[in-house]
Amino acid sequence: MRIAVIGSGAVGCLYGARLGRAGHDVHFLMRRDLDAVRRHGLMIHSCDGDFHLPAKAYARSEDIGPVDLVICALKTTNLDVAEALIRPCMGPTTNLLALMNGLGVEERFAEWFGAANIFGGLAFVCSNRGEPGHVHHLSYGRLVFAHLLDDLDRTRGIADLFAAAGLTTSVAPSLVQARWEKLVWNIPFSTLAVTAGAVTTRHIMEDDGLRELARLLMVETIAAGNANRCTLDAEPLVEKMFANTATMGDYKPSMLIDYQCKRELEVESILGEPVRRAAALNVAVPHMAMQYRLASFLDRLNRGLIQ
Amino acid sequence: MRIAVIGSGAVGCLYGARLGRAGHDVHFLMRRDLDAVRRHGLMIHSCDGDFHLPAKAYARSEDIGPVDLVICALKTTNLDVAEALIRPCMGPTTNLLALMNGLGVEERFAEWFGAANIFGGLAFVCSNRGEPGHVHHLSYGRLVFAHLLDDLDRTRGIADLFAAAGLTTSVAPSLVQARWEKLVWNIPFSTLAVTAGAVTTRHIMEDDGLRELARLLMVETIAAGNANRCTLDAEPLVEKMFANTATMGDYKPSMLIDYQCKRELEVESILGEPVRRAAALNVAVPHMAMQYRLASFLDRLNRGLIQ
Repeated sequence: MRIAVIGSGAVGCLYGARLGRAGHDVHFLMRRDLDAVRRHGLMIHSCDGDFHLPAKAYARSEDIGPVDLVICALKTTNLDVAEALIRPCMGPTTNLLALMNGLGVEERFAEWFGAANIFGGLAFVCSNRGEPGHVHHLSYGRLVFAHLLDDLDRTRGIADLFAAAGLTTSVAPSLVQARWEKLVWNIPFSTLAVTAGAVTTRHIMEDDGLRELARLLMVETIAAGNANRCTLDAEPLVEKMFANTATMGDYKPSMLIDYQCKRELEVESILGEPVRRAAALNVAVPHMAMQYRLASFLDRLNRGLIQ
Repeated sequence: MRIAVIGSGAVGCLYGARLGRAGHDVHFLMRRDLDAVRRHGLMIHSCDGDFHLPAKAYARSEDIGPVDLVICALKTTNLDVAEALIRPCMGPTTNLLALMNGLGVEERFAEWFGAANIFGGLAFVCSNRGEPGHVHHLSYGRLVFAHLLDDLDRTRGIADLFAAAGLTTSVAPSLVQARWEKLVWNIPFSTLAVTAGAVTTRHIMEDDGLRELARLLMVETIAAGNANRCTLDAEPLVEKMFANTATMGDYKPSMLIDYQCKRELEVESILGEPVRRAAALNVAVPHMAMQYRLASFLDRLNRGLIQ
């Protein structure tokens, strides 16, 4: 299959390289790593086994052209430029998979390209970029897929593609539910890690006050999700999130890593859009809205945008 | 009048020295500055005019003994040791004035010494300590007094004492209302200055999100105060607080200065006690409670108490 990876950060490179190693014809749109990958290919240092891929890297989407599948793995902070980067790779039957965080991305893609061929992917993975051309895959890696219009058969087709490349995959019957369910973890843990002074998930778990804030944020997220066509069962889901997080130790969510590297945070897709959707649905989310205002300010302060 | 100042930080030294200069017999209980003040007296660098006072300084309250008026200007973080420090200076008719921040201090004093002679003082002042024996009084300085049982005549007596020393004073008809009204400023501005990343009041005023959080915190504080015997008129009070703060420029609340100096924050008297009182009165204060949990954690993280 001819595949384009738009946004070749750690996640895009890791999964694109796995598909390339499995025999697919994968084309990577890159900025920072372009020269290094053209010369030396992609080196994946992975907990599932290291490997090297002589990858095809491009500076312009036009040079890739139409493909069968576009995997968009841009940070959501770059959503404004996504349409222009994706469009040259879209043919009449091209599938578009958003391997991105938070809420509202697939809906934007549908505005630009129609809803029929839009898929969402949720990557449960800990990975980061090293030297140009090198990606470090530290742990986890499971993928969950869904279709914007919840077409299960077509979602299975996407999942099979990644499963055949040796990845652990599953199919979600509802994209909106899969997105909100991931937010039930991301909204408390990714954002408190920043607003509580740049700390890991262990600090949140061990402090009674922060743990209670995490619980309140989960309960609000579940209420907003359920008003938005989900059927999330609050108590068992909260328990599951706490139990999973307890096994993670000193885990740094990607938002914390971005913060420590003074990169722009995915505040809008992880907090802003959920808060706006809750408001539109008349669900009170005071803790989530407060996190949104604090995290948004801290993000701009951290990047030197506030004098 | 024979006066003891218990807790000779910037506020205790500044007001004690003004009373000493006015002819009163003032005795200062000190730790850090004891040797310097015994040798060289107190030097007050004040926006109202510099002056020097050959002050009487003590390491133990027992060496001061009973006085007519005790001014307790300890930080509320030292409330646990206040009883032992104050008691040697208390005679049968001694008045005790709490020149301290936040809620609940006078009530603790009443448990120890009876309610009849307990007064509260609210200092609207910007001051800090310099080298040992030196105090810098940068701006403001107004004092508001009240009696724990709201005895207006006796409150006027305390206010007259300070007014005769050249200070701007006023008498509040209700101590609980005066305390809550000051919290309507302190809860948003002192605590957001810390949780929003160590910023000044100007940053809070200029950011739409933080300003809205400040407003929500004021509204909750007013609701809790009104459930606690106050008659605070929300809209004009919020407007007045914003208007006053707009004139302050890059003002650093004392809680922010404490935070930057890695000293313990007055979280319990400024947030903890108001949150507990609101809960006891069944007033919902989600933003205030969230600030409490975040500020409490940041305080301990900042002082190296969290691993």
